Formats: sequence, structure tokens, C-alpha cells
Amino acid sequence: MPLARDAEAVLVARFKALADPTRFAIFRLVAAQQEPICACDVVARFDLSQPTISHHMKILHDAGLITVERRGVWAYYAVVPEAVEFVTHMLGSLVPAQLGATA
Amino acid sequence: MPLARDAEAVLVARFKALADPTRFAIFRLVAAQQEPICACDVVARFDLSQPTISHHMKILHDAGLITVERRGVWAYYAVVPEAVEFVTHMLGSLVPAQLGATA
Repeated sequence: MPLARDAEAVLVARFKALADPTRFAIFRLVAAQQEPICACDVVARFDLSQPTISHHMKILHDAGLITVERRGVWAYYAVVPEAVEFVTHMLGSLVPAQLGATA
Repeated sequence: MPLARDAEAVLVARFKALADPTRFAIFRLVAAQQEPICACDVVARFDLSQPTISHHMKILHDAGLITVERRGVWAYYAVVPEAVEFVTHMLGSLVPAQLGATA
């Protein structure tokens, strides 16, 4: 079944955003939270400068994987569960059911 | 929950392999087949040279997403359903269940 061209572009952009070990580790931390996580806490966990963290967050945000909210001097990040579900659903739908079932 | 370092590396390598529009389109074609698909048929579907197709296939193969089998002069490609399931499962498990459920 063909994917809409837009859906395909979104999907590839999300793969690209997750295709870097550091960025994936940051995303994993954000995704694991029940509440938005402060940039200060992300900086504290990684041996990276705040601008570097911000750069990775921008790429994740541009790909629709996280939200960014400013509260005072700090940004707060949260996963977009629907964006992750979109990726898992689309990717899962690429493999015919019979193949998937016997795997 | 921390992912094993190896699992994380495998996951990121698969994201990287899928993070190119052309390669993703090729992968989608391979993944949709019930039987291994001949390189000749892949070449026929894309406006790309055989070496370019082979290059993309090598990256997908190195990431564990497809198998390559030689039959006479042609290579045949098939999706590895478990590899796709690994990605969807790992990615899905990053988001806390409560968040996923209310999304």
C-alpha cells in the first residue's frame, strides 16, 4: 500500500532525528518522563553544553517528536506520544501480516 | 529502563539506514513482498543504477533489516520481519504506558 508522500517525508524526518546516538539518548530520557523535563536536568545528565542540547532538541522538535515549552529562563521538553506511535504504526505496517506473524 | 548499549547501537543504525528518502522507498518495496525480490525488479522500479541500488541494499543489510541471497547473476532481497519488530517494539517501549494510552 503506498504511503502518502507527506507521511513518508514525516517518517523519514523522524528516522533522521533519531539516527544519532547522542540525540537518541536525549530523546530516550525525554520520552521516559511522566512530566515535561527541564533543560537544566537534561544538561545535568549529559556531558554536553546547553547549546548542543538545544540543537538536538530543535531537531527532535522539528521532526514533531517533542514539544518545547518555555517557563521562565528554562525550556521544558516532553515527548509527543502520537508521533512515536505514528512511526511504530507506519513501520509495522510495511511488513505483510503473514511475514510478521511467522517471525 | 535503560537499553543495553548494543541494542541502542542496533536501533540507531536501523534509524540511520531508514533516514534517507530513496533508501526508505526501496526498503518499503522490499518489505511489502511475500517472496524475496530480484534486484532486477528493484532496478526496474526506480530511476537508479544497479550500483546505487546495491549501495542502498548494503546499508539496509548491514543494519540487519534485509537479507541478500545470490541466485545466478541476480541478488534477491527480503525483509527481516524480526528486525522491523525490534525497532517498533523498542521505540514503543520508550514512552510510558500512561502517556501512550491517553494520546
